[in-house]
Amino acid sequence: MTTVWTQARRAARMNPSIIREILKVTEKPGLLSMAGGLPSADTFPVDALKAACDRVLTNNPRESLQYAASEGFGPLREWVAARVATLGMAVSPDQVLITSGSQQGLDLVGKILCDAGAPVAVETPTYLGALQAFTPFEPLFASLASDDEGPRPEAIRALPHDAPGTRFSYLLPNYQNPTGRVMSAQRRAAVVEASRQAGVPLLEDNPYGDLWFDEPPPAALSSLWPEGSLYLGSFSKVLTPGFRLGYLVAPPALYPKLLQAKQAADLHTPGFNQRVVYEVIRDGFLDRHVPTIRALYKANRDAMAAALREHLPAGCEWRSPLGGMFFWVRLPAGLDAMALLPRAVDAGIAYVPGAAFYAQQPDARTLRLSFVTLTPDLIREGVATLGRLLREALETADEHAP
Amino acid sequence: MTTVWTQARRAARMNPSIIREILKVTEKPGLLSMAGGLPSADTFPVDALKAACDRVLTNNPRESLQYAASEGFGPLREWVAARVATLGMAVSPDQVLITSGSQQGLDLVGKILCDAGAPVAVETPTYLGALQAFTPFEPLFASLASDDEGPRPEAIRALPHDAPGTRFSYLLPNYQNPTGRVMSAQRRAAVVEASRQAGVPLLEDNPYGDLWFDEPPPAALSSLWPEGSLYLGSFSKVLTPGFRLGYLVAPPALYPKLLQAKQAADLHTPGFNQRVVYEVIRDGFLDRHVPTIRALYKANRDAMAAALREHLPAGCEWRSPLGGMFFWVRLPAGLDAMALLPRAVDAGIAYVPGAAFYAQQPDARTLRLSFVTLTPDLIREGVATLGRLLREALETADEHAP
Repeated sequence: MTTVWTQARRAARMNPSIIREILKVTEKPGLLSMAGGLPSADTFPVDALKAACDRVLTNNPRESLQYAASEGFGPLREWVAARVATLGMAVSPDQVLITSGSQQGLDLVGKILCDAGAPVAVETPTYLGALQAFTPFEPLFASLASDDEGPRPEAIRALPHDAPGTRFSYLLPNYQNPTGRVMSAQRRAAVVEASRQAGVPLLEDNPYGDLWFDEPPPAALSSLWPEGSLYLGSFSKVLTPGFRLGYLVAPPALYPKLLQAKQAADLHTPGFNQRVVYEVIRDGFLDRHVPTIRALYKANRDAMAAALREHLPAGCEWRSPLGGMFFWVRLPAGLDAMALLPRAVDAGIAYVPGAAFYAQQPDARTLRLSFVTLTPDLIREGVATLGRLLREALETADEHAP
Repeated sequence: MTTVWTQARRAARMNPSIIREILKVTEKPGLLSMAGGLPSADTFPVDALKAACDRVLTNNPRESLQYAASEGFGPLREWVAARVATLGMAVSPDQVLITSGSQQGLDLVGKILCDAGAPVAVETPTYLGALQAFTPFEPLFASLASDDEGPRPEAIRALPHDAPGTRFSYLLPNYQNPTGRVMSAQRRAAVVEASRQAGVPLLEDNPYGDLWFDEPPPAALSSLWPEGSLYLGSFSKVLTPGFRLGYLVAPPALYPKLLQAKQAADLHTPGFNQRVVYEVIRDGFLDRHVPTIRALYKANRDAMAAALREHLPAGCEWRSPLGGMFFWVRLPAGLDAMALLPRAVDAGIAYVPGAAFYAQQPDARTLRLSFVTLTPDLIREGVATLGRLLREALETADEHAP
């Protein structure tokens, strides 16, 4: 077919999301899906949101329904500045940009900092949505060698610094998606020190930091190097993703360009949504609400940890996460999580093959399991099915072994 | 100051918005501002939105507060397909992408179609926000020679078609921002025919099309060349801008890439907002509501037209718009709208200097006046002040003439 449309060079790099295609497969009704990255809908504070919608439309209808400032709603920006102070970050509300989910923060940062061929460092593995957000800007991804505590400091020191220079490292220190791992205080200090020495700034993404189970995570990376860090936060995991509200905290040197990018991208995040969320959280609501999410998710984590111990065959490896939403499982040699997925779906379960989360050289033996969208009973049932499937696959693999 | 941040090449092109800086000046309390591009807050259907928020959170709390499909809410996409059919466009709901305001549609199209140095054609003058949305992707703007009916067909035929080729023409056929002009049916046919011959596709932006005063505008450009057109629509001017809801209609050949760009940009437009707006409009609400906006704006248009005739000095030129929100005034030779703005603000009024709306070679004698944010009485007062100011300026200019 001939077409009158000439697409941009960058469009050629944008390919259908693997995970998107996978999630379509996993939308089969009745499937026990451990694939999604969705928070539990049981945690949404419906009554509080309903009351807040009513109050905002009663008290401030004209302001909440009109065009608004690209920076975001002033009181919400102040709230964010106070909130990140509890993570050790001393910032002014003027450094806070309200975004349409923290995914938009990734897009804006990509637009301002990425050039074709300039390296951007990411963890191994990393959040797929960040790879998708940066890809249109044609960075050269550099996968940082990583272990159970996150990226290794020597990998950061080894990043290319000749022109065009590594533009930033994208890091998720708390209960990372997909691995669930958390960076220790010691690792944080070492990573920041290495970054400072290498002259490579940080983009810190923290959607899961509030979802700790026994003790809060260490202070934010951004608290250790304020002038070299950008910070992304989100209301999606502690309140609702359906309002698409996140925030970006930027050093004063970068803020004006990010603000221009925001204005060009969508003028501003819905003022109504910002006012409703502020109305819900202004009086300490999250301090009462988030502990209920932690308790729910911790019970689910425990259920999945027990089920994995009971049902998974020898040779599978995982660590019980200390927070967040995900287990990361490595299968025994010879098994391929992507290849097994159709059989898993036939058997009534779903997961995300880990290969989707690597910028380079995927580990085909990995998979991600969410423990927050099923009940403990269904988690046990789903993991039991996974265990059966893996044992069968191992037997088949043995039969076919030379 | 040294900085660890290396900005992208494209960031250098992004400069503080002139209009943004201007609007800051015009935020002085008590100012009679005719500068803003805001719809009248009197038109926001507060009660309908309040009831819809309540219904959505009562009937579908889990779905409306959860992550949702990047394409948008299915019933809303169907509504859009039916709506644009009234403009002559035969499209499937599968061709509809719900966006975070139509501004986001501009960003997504820029991302998919613009390359550094590849021409993009725009009207003379054109919507400033589009220039801002495309600029990060480094197009070479080609200003189409335009008259009272819009861009001239011969200017489209003359667009560069050697590689990298003109990527698209960005056109606002209905009550254009900033000029208020509308393209006749004859001009539409000629522009589409010229575009087809030149092989230059169209991006049609239609935020004001519903705001006609005496008769609806001719059929959409996109209805005349479906496979060569992208279409942007918005709920900002007929319902509320504070929900940030717009839509993009794309030919099947382009839809998948735009969808990927949307997913990378912010995952999806807030599902809650989409469901609330659908709940408001599903039963023909706009057919009852929009006529009240038309009546209000028409009365204001009449008030401003009469005031301009009464108060503006000889040599000023303008046409009374047949819809939309703006008058476009050209001052007598020797006057500069930007240079006069500080005196206007001192005198208690504000407008937007037209120079901001030109991709190239601004006409310093032009200015934009909104007639929808002030009452008729205040419009008369504001225009009387503008008239006094212009007469004084003309006298001063005469004194300084050689």
